[in-house]
Amino acid sequence: MSATRSGIAEKVEKLVTKAVMEKNLIEEGDRILVAVSGGKDSTVMAWALSRIRPAVRKNYELAAVHIASDFCACCKKAALEKRLSEWGVSFTDIFTPVIGRLKPGRVMNCYWCSTQRRMELLKHAVERGFNKIALGHHLDDIIETFFMNMTAKGELSTMPILLRYRNYPVSVIRPLGFVEERQIIACAEEKGILRAACTCPFGVNSSRKIVRKRIADFTGNSSAVKRRILRSVDRAGLLAGE
Amino acid sequence: MSATRSGIAEKVEKLVTKAVMEKNLIEEGDRILVAVSGGKDSTVMAWALSRIRPAVRKNYELAAVHIASDFCACCKKAALEKRLSEWGVSFTDIFTPVIGRLKPGRVMNCYWCSTQRRMELLKHAVERGFNKIALGHHLDDIIETFFMNMTAKGELSTMPILLRYRNYPVSVIRPLGFVEERQIIACAEEKGILRAACTCPFGVNSSRKIVRKRIADFTGNSSAVKRRILRSVDRAGLLAGE
Repeated sequence: MSATRSGIAEKVEKLVTKAVMEKNLIEEGDRILVAVSGGKDSTVMAWALSRIRPAVRKNYELAAVHIASDFCACCKKAALEKRLSEWGVSFTDIFTPVIGRLKPGRVMNCYWCSTQRRMELLKHAVERGFNKIALGHHLDDIIETFFMNMTAKGELSTMPILLRYRNYPVSVIRPLGFVEERQIIACAEEKGILRAACTCPFGVNSSRKIVRKRIADFTGNSSAVKRRILRSVDRAGLLAGE
Repeated sequence: MSATRSGIAEKVEKLVTKAVMEKNLIEEGDRILVAVSGGKDSTVMAWALSRIRPAVRKNYELAAVHIASDFCACCKKAALEKRLSEWGVSFTDIFTPVIGRLKPGRVMNCYWCSTQRRMELLKHAVERGFNKIALGHHLDDIIETFFMNMTAKGELSTMPILLRYRNYPVSVIRPLGFVEERQIIACAEEKGILRAACTCPFGVNSSRKIVRKRIADFTGNSSAVKRRILRSVDRAGLLAGE
């Protein structure tokens, strides 16, 4: 463990606790469905949510679900399930045939795949009586979406940290919203959390890749600048959705 | 005149008219004080405001004022005054001793100088019964301020196109808000408008210079991207101040 990374897990715990307390993400008796891909982000989220119980002082249930698709090799799922069970988080695996659901003549794309899997997640949560869905998006994802929406859609908006659905008895929470990606990577390393994610043959969406590079240049990869951008977005009320 | 720049003056007129009509910047009987530095932006603004009368269909008065400071060589002011009078705009020159007003022990800075000159402008407008002050900030200035406020102050805000002062019977308007700097430069060239600005020994504020470069990189200097950013800012209500 290098000196600079020492205590990074505690730092992540603190930032998740801060988001949960400040944005009131967890309430007494919540049944929280944690969406896990097997990647570092969602696995660190599941770990952190299981760790912050004493700080949050609420009773809540944690269960993980993995929405698999045709693009999922799933070779490391057993390791993920074992890890989650050590943290007291149950694991369910659901297969969504995203290719089979394509309408004739349409080609596969990120939007279609993610919408299908999101609907499956929502359906599962509602059917099993979960009232919260936790997604593993972090600070860099939120800023990235903010810049993408601004430059491509002409709109100041981003992924909220708390989103209440109007038509479903479920809210979406993003407990990693105050955590930077580099902190998650360092935390995963410190805690020995290995990637066990499905590999998508399409890779990262290319326009997202370009924006990511441009934001890194624009902010000079400064944590202070990125946190001021997040604060701007927060103060404008964009982190609390409908 | 190059082919690409042909008609740029008409384009600028249209964009100024659009801002004036959409944001209701000019009302019947307005007495508008145009703040001129002698630079390309404010001179093009004075020209455009004198040209759009038929499109705007309102009666309004235009008068220009130059707030000079200790840093003003003012050698080209006669040329500016002549140009303005051709457009039917009167000219007044006011000297503000920004150095003399410094408190003992304080050093000169951009903030002090601009605040002093802005107060002088406001005082002149109120004393002479002007109800609007027109400032020459353009689209790039507005985006720049937006990014500076976001990254340095942690706040989504910018210079509004219309700002109503609470304590003074005066509003500030920025009729060039929809015009890009490169369009102003091309227009000034097409109309033979020469720079006659005072040279500030401090030059452009260095943090503004860095942000300018970063925005150029981030947007790839694309007009379409910059206009989508402006639209985001507009839709969030940030172009209409208190």
